[in-house]
Amino acid sequence: MKRYAVILAGGQGTRFWPESRSNKPKQFLTLIGNRSLIQQSYDRLLDLFPPNQVLVVVGSEHLDLAKQQLPDLPLENFLVEPIGKNTAPCIGLAAVHIRKRDPSATMLVFPADHMIQGLTDFHLCLDKGIQWASNSDYLVTIGIMPSRPDTGYGYVEREEVPIDNGPPVYSVKRFVEKPDLDTAMAFVKSGRYYWNSGIFIWQVDSILNKIQLYLPELYNGLIQIEENIGTDSEDVVMRTVFHNLEAISIDYSILEKSDQILLVQGDFGWDDLGSWGALADTSASDIQGMVVKGDYVGIDNTDCFIHGQDVLIAALGVHDLVIVQSGNVVLVCDKSRTQEVRDLVQQVKEQKMEHYI
Amino acid sequence: MKRYAVILAGGQGTRFWPESRSNKPKQFLTLIGNRSLIQQSYDRLLDLFPPNQVLVVVGSEHLDLAKQQLPDLPLENFLVEPIGKNTAPCIGLAAVHIRKRDPSATMLVFPADHMIQGLTDFHLCLDKGIQWASNSDYLVTIGIMPSRPDTGYGYVEREEVPIDNGPPVYSVKRFVEKPDLDTAMAFVKSGRYYWNSGIFIWQVDSILNKIQLYLPELYNGLIQIEENIGTDSEDVVMRTVFHNLEAISIDYSILEKSDQILLVQGDFGWDDLGSWGALADTSASDIQGMVVKGDYVGIDNTDCFIHGQDVLIAALGVHDLVIVQSGNVVLVCDKSRTQEVRDLVQQVKEQKMEHYI
Repeated sequence: MKRYAVILAGGQGTRFWPESRSNKPKQFLTLIGNRSLIQQSYDRLLDLFPPNQVLVVVGSEHLDLAKQQLPDLPLENFLVEPIGKNTAPCIGLAAVHIRKRDPSATMLVFPADHMIQGLTDFHLCLDKGIQWASNSDYLVTIGIMPSRPDTGYGYVEREEVPIDNGPPVYSVKRFVEKPDLDTAMAFVKSGRYYWNSGIFIWQVDSILNKIQLYLPELYNGLIQIEENIGTDSEDVVMRTVFHNLEAISIDYSILEKSDQILLVQGDFGWDDLGSWGALADTSASDIQGMVVKGDYVGIDNTDCFIHGQDVLIAALGVHDLVIVQSGNVVLVCDKSRTQEVRDLVQQVKEQKMEHYI
Repeated sequence: MKRYAVILAGGQGTRFWPESRSNKPKQFLTLIGNRSLIQQSYDRLLDLFPPNQVLVVVGSEHLDLAKQQLPDLPLENFLVEPIGKNTAPCIGLAAVHIRKRDPSATMLVFPADHMIQGLTDFHLCLDKGIQWASNSDYLVTIGIMPSRPDTGYGYVEREEVPIDNGPPVYSVKRFVEKPDLDTAMAFVKSGRYYWNSGIFIWQVDSILNKIQLYLPELYNGLIQIEENIGTDSEDVVMRTVFHNLEAISIDYSILEKSDQILLVQGDFGWDDLGSWGALADTSASDIQGMVVKGDYVGIDNTDCFIHGQDVLIAALGVHDLVIVQSGNVVLVCDKSRTQEVRDLVQQVKEQKMEHYI
């Protein structure tokens, strides 16, 4: 019985614009350290999985980039979404590919674009999750101990009493969409709520059974795909099936409906890096609160995140700003409002300036 | 008796960095309107001077740029400084060239990089100055009615009673270097102080006599130059003489010492555009106080000056900033501190990043 890791790299996010562009979304950016986020996601798995048991699901327009960034991954382990349809179809696709290779496999799902600091604790959580998922029908998720009342994350509420320890495991009471601030504060205070990490562990059969139960149309499509894997018609079947699928998240369509969910408590320094502001918060700053990458000169600046790709950024007397230059765009943004960068991108689209996206 | 205009275009200023660079200083930039500052300085004179009576003094490294920007000016009217030596040598050089053409000429001197709004009033002042200078030994300057207690300008104090009217003409009591704020406020309140515009009117003989009196060494050099104008040795004599000259301003070396100075009162919307902030103040803004040039998207920004050359500038939630992209540099500066841009340039120099200057 093998275990397979699936890295979901189909995202198209614009929140790191202008560094993220339509031809290079967030997961392929080197935002922290020397490796891109997808490379770091892959690196984190190497102690637990040989490369031939790591699958990457990627949009067709980014396949070349993914191959380039992950040269050690066997080519057949890149699964290509012809079109993005959110997480349920994408996870289902990976599941049938894994079932084809090993029907008794355990499957672990990871977003490609998150940051994790404590590798040892992360691995302990995965081991614990594998232990619970591999001999049961349970769908296991990693819940992240919240360090602040973040309104940008979904939350998971646990039952009172752990069913296992070291790290603790709980039954899940419910999944909650992004809350408002008051609710988020109450969640954090209660001690029973976790951030939804998007990391899942289950037997490949368990998740496919759930898809059959809650998303029968998707299941039928996946069966068609599964039957054609390795045949001449694989590509055309994939394209046809995917274009007709409903775009829907695994959280909404299955996890929120199932009562067989377990949560492993994770406390290993996690961040989904949802914005430039979030990246700034997780980056090491100097004594003036400055985080600087690239050529820079400055006088009397404090608490700025400055990130120049191929220009000199010169700043004088400015505070709490994110200043990013990438290619043909310069972004200057109040550090507390970087969530709204997507609205700027929307403006660019509306003004038909696509060469800036 | 002819009149000659001399445009002093030898400046190397870095205050409009990064748009001004060592190979393209301020006077050659198109900061307002569709023509560069030197082009506008030239255009302003065309009603009063035929092109062959306009001389431009320029540094050797900017001669080609000046010729390109002023294609109607006869080539022999570009006078090249081999090395910048402040205004006294430069004005003296123009004076001997003019004396060679017409010993009885009246000479008018203009900085190349100032902004003037009221052309009619400007011309009236020049006419009045010419009237007083052309039949006397007087050195005439235009004093600008101050609209604020600016500490970035030199001031000129006049005597109490005008000696002529429409526009008024006064004897000058003294020249004053840049004052502190309290002093500047007292100056403005008194009604007897004017900004030193750097515009001068005199007979070519009058100024050369004063140079002979106060700067005998410069005078000797100028005579050597004058004797070689149009000969094969002109260039080598120019280079030799100029390299050995003391760099000194006409204000400090002559005007402050002479008691034969008149002032014509100027009130025609003048600004020396000493910084990005000064340019922002003189530019038309929208209802949010934004002045924008180049591709731009923004949300909730107020009172910013945004000037992109060949990138998109995207701004979100920022206030009172100057944001300028030019070539390989992006400047983000508190609008009230743009005078300190030169200190940033100094930093760039110290860090040996000359390709950004």
